[in-house]
Amino acid sequence: MERPRHQGMAKNTYMRWRLPLVCLLLEVAMIVLFGVFVRFGPEADAHWEEEKKDMNVTSDIENDFYFRYPSFQDVHVMIFVGFGFLMMFLKRYGFGAVGFNFLLAAFGIQWALLMQGWFHSFKTGKILIGVENLINADFCVGSVCVAFGAILGKTSPIQLLVMTLFQVTLFAVNEYILLNLLHVKDAGGSMTIHTFGAYFGLTVTRILYRPNLEQSKDKQGSVYHSDLFAMVGTLYLWMYWPSFNSAVSEHGDAQHRAAINTYCSLAACVLTTMAFSSMLQKKGKLDMVHIQNATLAGGVAVGTSAEMMLTPYGSLIVGFICGIVSTVGYVYLTPVLESRLHIQDTCGIHNLHGMPGLIGGIVGAITAAAATEEVYGKEGFIKAFDFTGSYKTRTPSVQGGFQAAGIVVSLVMAFAGGALVGGILKLPIWGDPADETCFEDDVYWEV
Amino acid sequence: MERPRHQGMAKNTYMRWRLPLVCLLLEVAMIVLFGVFVRFGPEADAHWEEEKKDMNVTSDIENDFYFRYPSFQDVHVMIFVGFGFLMMFLKRYGFGAVGFNFLLAAFGIQWALLMQGWFHSFKTGKILIGVENLINADFCVGSVCVAFGAILGKTSPIQLLVMTLFQVTLFAVNEYILLNLLHVKDAGGSMTIHTFGAYFGLTVTRILYRPNLEQSKDKQGSVYHSDLFAMVGTLYLWMYWPSFNSAVSEHGDAQHRAAINTYCSLAACVLTTMAFSSMLQKKGKLDMVHIQNATLAGGVAVGTSAEMMLTPYGSLIVGFICGIVSTVGYVYLTPVLESRLHIQDTCGIHNLHGMPGLIGGIVGAITAAAATEEVYGKEGFIKAFDFTGSYKTRTPSVQGGFQAAGIVVSLVMAFAGGALVGGILKLPIWGDPADETCFEDDVYWEV
Amino acid sequence: MERPRHQGMAKNTYMRWRLPLVCLLLEVAMIVLFGVFVRFGPEADAHWEEEKKDMNVTSDIENDFYFRYPSFQDVHVMIFVGFGFLMMFLKRYGFGAVGFNFLLAAFGIQWALLMQGWFHSFKTGKILIGVENLINADFCVGSVCVAFGAILGKTSPIQLLVMTLFQVTLFAVNEYILLNLLHVKDAGGSMTIHTFGAYFGLTVTRILYRPNLEQSKDKQGSVYHSDLFAMVGTLYLWMYWPSFNSAVSEHGDAQHRAAINTYCSLAACVLTTMAFSSMLQKKGKLDMVHIQNATLAGGVAVGTSAEMMLTPYGSLIVGFICGIVSTVGYVYLTPVLESRLHIQDTCGIHNLHGMPGLIGGIVGAITAAAATEEVYGKEGFIKAFDFTGSYKTRTPSVQGGFQAAGIVVSLVMAFAGGALVGGILKLPIWGDPADETCFEDDVYWEV
Repeated sequence: MERPRHQGMAKNTYMRWRLPLVCLLLEVAMIVLFGVFVRFGPEADAHWEEEKKDMNVTSDIENDFYFRYPSFQDVHVMIFVGFGFLMMFLKRYGFGAVGFNFLLAAFGIQWALLMQGWFHSFKTGKILIGVENLINADFCVGSVCVAFGAILGKTSPIQLLVMTLFQVTLFAVNEYILLNLLHVKDAGGSMTIHTFGAYFGLTVTRILYRPNLEQSKDKQGSVYHSDLFAMVGTLYLWMYWPSFNSAVSEHGDAQHRAAINTYCSLAACVLTTMAFSSMLQKKGKLDMVHIQNATLAGGVAVGTSAEMMLTPYGSLIVGFICGIVSTVGYVYLTPVLESRLHIQDTCGIHNLHGMPGLIGGIVGAITAAAATEEVYGKEGFIKAFDFTGSYKTRTPSVQGGFQAAGIVVSLVMAFAGGALVGGILKLPIWGDPADETCFEDDVYWEV
Repeated sequence: MERPRHQGMAKNTYMRWRLPLVCLLLEVAMIVLFGVFVRFGPEADAHWEEEKKDMNVTSDIENDFYFRYPSFQDVHVMIFVGFGFLMMFLKRYGFGAVGFNFLLAAFGIQWALLMQGWFHSFKTGKILIGVENLINADFCVGSVCVAFGAILGKTSPIQLLVMTLFQVTLFAVNEYILLNLLHVKDAGGSMTIHTFGAYFGLTVTRILYRPNLEQSKDKQGSVYHSDLFAMVGTLYLWMYWPSFNSAVSEHGDAQHRAAINTYCSLAACVLTTMAFSSMLQKKGKLDMVHIQNATLAGGVAVGTSAEMMLTPYGSLIVGFICGIVSTVGYVYLTPVLESRLHIQDTCGIHNLHGMPGLIGGIVGAITAAAATEEVYGKEGFIKAFDFTGSYKTRTPSVQGGFQAAGIVVSLVMAFAGGALVGGILKLPIWGDPADETCFEDDVYWEV
Repeated sequence: MERPRHQGMAKNTYMRWRLPLVCLLLEVAMIVLFGVFVRFGPEADAHWEEEKKDMNVTSDIENDFYFRYPSFQDVHVMIFVGFGFLMMFLKRYGFGAVGFNFLLAAFGIQWALLMQGWFHSFKTGKILIGVENLINADFCVGSVCVAFGAILGKTSPIQLLVMTLFQVTLFAVNEYILLNLLHVKDAGGSMTIHTFGAYFGLTVTRILYRPNLEQSKDKQGSVYHSDLFAMVGTLYLWMYWPSFNSAVSEHGDAQHRAAINTYCSLAACVLTTMAFSSMLQKKGKLDMVHIQNATLAGGVAVGTSAEMMLTPYGSLIVGFICGIVSTVGYVYLTPVLESRLHIQDTCGIHNLHGMPGLIGGIVGAITAAAATEEVYGKEGFIKAFDFTGSYKTRTPSVQGGFQAAGIVVSLVMAFAGGALVGGILKLPIWGDPADETCFEDDVYWEV
């Protein structure tokens, strides 16, 4: 009845029936799967009143809700406002940045509850969920938001939903390999979220390479107000990152420590970012792109080690280095990646999540390998690395090796998965925009 | 001395003496009433140190502050940033949206502390307040913010203060009837906050009907940046709604469960909103009005049932339906309400709070009626519905009936109260703007 | 190699080597000092698992992290988003407002952890840090953010870092004198943060007086959107102020009470601000400058007394008065300060932090002097004022006297320190902007 609107190069970006169909199908699938599988965990179930006694819990305050809910809400803000607004720097893509991020994250958290649930919370045929599952679902979606940064402005909402479907699946598999099979620690996700998310996204954008993207060059920049909106995203990510890295750590000292380490790393990162942003520009002026992004690298890079005894000065050193690496990456590496490797990375996720994620994995491996009973205390040592059961005899240096293996596995999963998903997204059926209408809200939004 | 500035149709919008007088009178009244009535509750009073022993409390962490303060702050953000920014979509009414919301909410929370205090926290002649009172005061004001959405841009700040004075009073009465007389559960306020607030506001705007409002039609739309500001409001409401619906639930599993149910409902709602927003537009493009509003309907609609054993998939279903109902309402119902019923609903609160609030009340009644000891556990069942004392013998189906009665009472209170208050606001003494200067900050603000 | 860019009056604002050098030197110094001095406190150290037993702690929930982390995050948001966005009202200085605030705060919190650590958390040669240290570091930086408000738009980032270095040092000394030597209560920092920060900043800006500042007059105003961004800052400060004033109070009733008092004071403040904003303008229109700032004075003014038994109506009275004082200050005092005393106060910090800070100190002194065992309870009285050890015999009236002395000490430190630091900042080596390029991002930022 309605004629699709053709845009340059005769791309069909008409969403009217495709997008609703995909959304409704996915949501109906979620309802069916939730109906079959998902139930409340013991601390969220009304039976808690009785189970409390069995569990020997004397007070309602011992409910995991009170240990983790404030951190959960901070993480939630990072995913929806943090990522959504950070990507708002483009002058004509504010609706797409915040709106599509909203869409993919809202779908992703549901699918992640299922995928992660089957791997980690599956008991007697049901997935039993509580606040920790909500945090982990947000984490999983965080890796999709990272990948979204690479392809921002160049994909249709359907492509984003398809990518989310696959990436969440792969994330859950990778996470299972790392946490359960390799028995690796990665509470803040340097490997599982950032390294995986970044290299997955970079592979996808490589495969979706657009040789004629310079046709929309005028829209790739920011304007004054879009940069200020982006700073809302930056600051919320920066401020709440201590909650992110501590949200699923063990109760007590581990959560406490993870927050402190992250706070320190991020603070140091701001100073080196400012230093190098000024230093690498001829006129010595600061560049908002660096301030918006590289200041966050310190949070990424302590994602594995924050809950370990990294120490405050160790955190400062990591933040110091990452502010430099990330800013240098924006200035020198991003242009090369595009011109030589044909990797068009809209938000520069390689600088913010890729390299700092790898550094984070390495720092985690080293910190684990360097752990001693003296530094952790006898009981603290066992608790910190969960050296119990079949891992009772694992030594710190072996743990360091497994941590390093976790980086490799995450990279392999990212490249292989990204190639697969990139190939699927290349199919001409998803309604992606023409080269000259990239980075433009008008394609998918009433403006 | 100063001559009032006359604006079109000779309306006198000069605020210089009237607004200060009203503000100061109200605030002095608050101080006097607080002086006579309001004191710290036992957990906020310095005597706590001694009372702890009497109460058999072994640790300071058992203070209600630690159970509810994080949720309180989230709710606080929803009221002041959430509602304030959500209403900022109008191109020339940003100051009024956020500023008047600030004014009415700041007054409203004080008056609500008193009104709700007399009904619920009155002991030996004093209102004893703690963090739960602060949350409930914010909740009460939430219903005023809802009503404000219907008359946004068409009223003077004095009218808003007068409306707040009356609406808070009626809210407290309605809440007392529901919670105390009918013994109804409504922790997230589907009935008391949303249904009441929406139909109250719609009645008020009906009575304030402006036949010539099309004179300011050019100012009723949004611009690119105002839509981005509005998304700040949307996202904070969306993210923190799990805190809203769980903030005053019982300690432990009930708070935990309410947060999970709300998280699920909201996630599903985003997908159906996107689907129908695209489907109902000829070009298949997404409409920011829907994304800003209908994505929140899922939170409204589990306001009564979130703390019950609605289950995650039940929540998904509710969110699924409400995203559709709300979006369809924006497209088809709002224009009809204006043209046929002369209800000019600036923000479309009927779609976001009215219909979803009613659905929420009904879902709550059904969920309560379907409750069994098997699902809740013997003790959990009694705790969840507070079937103690004189309600010891109440059955789930009877409870369901009372829940349904709560919807009816809320509607009656809303219509009757709205008619009364609308009539008062129609008096020509409050300085409301002329038809051609509606939706325009310049009338009441230095721009 | 690069030629510095000369700007009017031949000021050299070229930052390329100076800013990086200062940032890197400061950060390296931080790393070295943290390496020598800073370690995890017992509740963040992996030994906690063992120490718990020694400390007789039965549950992880007793870790201070769970008492204070939610408040910490709220305070964190106030420092980085609250102050950063509040100062964004200038039409062409958004990057500088949020970016320089980010820079100075990120450096300041590190230096504050050290300075405050040496005074308050120094044990066996090490500074042992936990979540309370993070809050106090944020608090300390808050006073720098206050001072920044006075010189906003008129200084280079290097000057801001130098000021931060000195001001944090002086803050820590002043805080030590007040809290440890005078045994004064000031949990929300009316004296240590606001009075000190404001009069320090005012002294600095007096010394940096620019007689020809009217050359950049056209840039000193706001535009519509910059005012809306500023409201983001205002609202986050306003909403989270209860967390600010309660963040480091004693566990239990004191935190609870501080939050309630602050909530009440802020609510009252909004109404009198609105009243006087309208009353003092010829046309009776509201002025966004007042709404953005004076509404917060109520939080400043209960900074000392919020944790005491100020009572809710006492808080309302304080807020009532401060809304008036602050608004009147903006209208009448700020112009006089500039024309007569040559104090150019960009954000009007004298009205928001100076006078309300003084009022806060006085209210605190009176509230302390009026304390009785009857009101506080025997044990509560001792706990509230820490009348133990060598202070066992101190009476409320003596405490009131010491509180008053704390105001005087803070003022003396502010004037003397501000004069010293102002003199240092006047040196022509820091790259400050010319008069005609003040309030202009283009000088230090790629725009």
